[in-house]
Amino acid sequence: MKTQVCIIGGGPSGLMLSQLLHLKGIDTILLERQSREYVLGRIRAGVLEHGFAALMREAQCGDRMDREGEIHNAFCVASGGEVHRLDLQKHSGNSVIVYGQTELTRDLYEARDRMKGTVIHNVEDVKLHDLKAEKPNVTYRDGDNIVRIDCDYVIGADGFHGVSRKSIPGDVLREYEKVYPFGWLGVLSRTKPVSPDLIYARHERGFALCSLRSQVLSRYYIQVPLTDDVEDWSDDAFWSELKRRLPQDLANVMETGPSIEKSIAPLRSYVAEPMRYGNLFLAGDAAHIVPPTGARGLNTAASDIYYLYHALTDHYLNGDDAGLEGYSEKALARVWKAQRFSWWLTSLLHTFPDSIDYDQRLQDIEMEYLFSSEAAQAAVAENYVGLPF
Amino acid sequence: MKTQVCIIGGGPSGLMLSQLLHLKGIDTILLERQSREYVLGRIRAGVLEHGFAALMREAQCGDRMDREGEIHNAFCVASGGEVHRLDLQKHSGNSVIVYGQTELTRDLYEARDRMKGTVIHNVEDVKLHDLKAEKPNVTYRDGDNIVRIDCDYVIGADGFHGVSRKSIPGDVLREYEKVYPFGWLGVLSRTKPVSPDLIYARHERGFALCSLRSQVLSRYYIQVPLTDDVEDWSDDAFWSELKRRLPQDLANVMETGPSIEKSIAPLRSYVAEPMRYGNLFLAGDAAHIVPPTGARGLNTAASDIYYLYHALTDHYLNGDDAGLEGYSEKALARVWKAQRFSWWLTSLLHTFPDSIDYDQRLQDIEMEYLFSSEAAQAAVAENYVGLPF
Repeated sequence: MKTQVCIIGGGPSGLMLSQLLHLKGIDTILLERQSREYVLGRIRAGVLEHGFAALMREAQCGDRMDREGEIHNAFCVASGGEVHRLDLQKHSGNSVIVYGQTELTRDLYEARDRMKGTVIHNVEDVKLHDLKAEKPNVTYRDGDNIVRIDCDYVIGADGFHGVSRKSIPGDVLREYEKVYPFGWLGVLSRTKPVSPDLIYARHERGFALCSLRSQVLSRYYIQVPLTDDVEDWSDDAFWSELKRRLPQDLANVMETGPSIEKSIAPLRSYVAEPMRYGNLFLAGDAAHIVPPTGARGLNTAASDIYYLYHALTDHYLNGDDAGLEGYSEKALARVWKAQRFSWWLTSLLHTFPDSIDYDQRLQDIEMEYLFSSEAAQAAVAENYVGLPF
Repeated sequence: MKTQVCIIGGGPSGLMLSQLLHLKGIDTILLERQSREYVLGRIRAGVLEHGFAALMREAQCGDRMDREGEIHNAFCVASGGEVHRLDLQKHSGNSVIVYGQTELTRDLYEARDRMKGTVIHNVEDVKLHDLKAEKPNVTYRDGDNIVRIDCDYVIGADGFHGVSRKSIPGDVLREYEKVYPFGWLGVLSRTKPVSPDLIYARHERGFALCSLRSQVLSRYYIQVPLTDDVEDWSDDAFWSELKRRLPQDLANVMETGPSIEKSIAPLRSYVAEPMRYGNLFLAGDAAHIVPPTGARGLNTAASDIYYLYHALTDHYLNGDDAGLEGYSEKALARVWKAQRFSWWLTSLLHTFPDSIDYDQRLQDIEMEYLFSSEAAQAAVAENYVGLPF
């Protein structure tokens, strides 16, 4: 097979890029290791920046998001029994949209189907070849056959565990990593969310997050030690611990119910540099991971896609390669700012098992300062709604 | 002897409080362990907030400061060969005054002399007694005699190593401390400052600071390992290392000369809580220490003095004890915000021997973000010019 751009990974990043390029007349093939059902079964974040939403609309996939997504003009931080509201609209003139990643992935798949885009699922043994040559190629196994795709460019949008980043030689790739000494235990339940706003809760027993997917679907998290197994946590134990970490009046009105999904995710900060190797371009989780605090993950992938979309369009439509040449540097500049914000918010809100008294007190003070300072709230707000692409 | 308020410590905090109370007709005795010459020989910081300057004027000691002090509307940060200017005036509507601590201490002593204030130097074996009783007393040794001062209140403004804080029982006092793995080697020289603005320099070899006392008196610092002795550093070695840490065009025009003073100071963050014990009230370094980055030390002492001045005036003139009752909590709230800022600026600008790659990169990004964000600069500016009392 032949194509212009071979995209590895059928998550939102790969799908959106393939859709955007298609609309500009650029041919793509998208390879996904899993089945579509598997991809759509993954429970992920749901806080979108308007920059992301604009890309969805440009990809002609924004209708349902605009109909069903909820505009959030603020988020809340509970600490010391009080709930502070950070007004995004006031401090940044902007807001975020709550719309589940599963939903937008579904919208993107439907758009790809409508346009008869080539999306190949269940590919095995994907391998990237000749990345430094003028024409790279990608092979995968389909039963007993090896299929080869010749292309101009390979986009590695296949996540942290994907093959793309691993195809870059070790002496070229520089990795930056920070591992946190805790994870998030998350529960999805068909219950009315305790609050229309997201609530990030600081508590001496650990962090908690009250989030939501819709008016009838709640997503809650609590910080747990990395040694905990999800089997250690009955639904009752989860609800009871969550309530202990929230202000009393919130806990009192919280609706509980059986968990639809329950899982523990470790928290990690990770960046691989550069994001380009020859004709391979990395995007999203393939190149960088943030802890979920502050919901930067998907939104950071969106700026990668935005830069790649424009770079590839400039290349094919205008013969201008400046965007491709500058991609890694430009993408990393924004990626690292999101890393900074995610690290900062994670550090602010979680308990750290080995932290000295001084640092614990400093965390209290950071919180007091934040909600006493318009400038500090403005700085948080501009990061939360997304720095400009 | 009898007095209303016995002040321990003849640094700027103690002197200013004694002067302010005197002007309200409240009697004080001030005890200082060292000679006046010794106190005036200490080289200290020289960046004053306007809140501090206003207190100096209220104490009728502001004339020379207003004549000779220099208004600084900005400070600079050198990093990666570039010099960024943080415009305090633009971002906070405020500025700072550069006026040496030695000079303002001299002004305060002269004012105390003019008003015939009781300032007793070279007191030995100061002891605080009956702090929980209605009338505490302070004793000291004068040759073979023990002198006793009966008073209503004792103010502990005798610095980190002073007797005041140590007079609070260990089970009452809670201490928070953070020690940094480096110190500052400082040199004072009769040379023209390399820049009219203060320059904080980040460099992979370590932090450097270009500061000044006047147009002919420069004060420079470089970060050094705690294992270094001041004898390890010749003047030549100092200048050469300082220049290596600055952008080339600054290093090229730097005027060097013999050091008038050279010393190494460790960096420490420290807070003792509460700041009141019975009728003893702590102020300034006796209760809290910041690393010198950002020049919060003297300015944080100033807010303690401001609160004590108003609390004691309310007590003696209006019979209102609310200020005294609330002193510790109120003072600590501002102290901790200054701690936060000093810690943040110290972390941002220094190299840390054990930091992981990720954290080093994060430091670069924090700097890039800061100088790309108006909101972040506004937050820094409001802390640098001093949060409201």
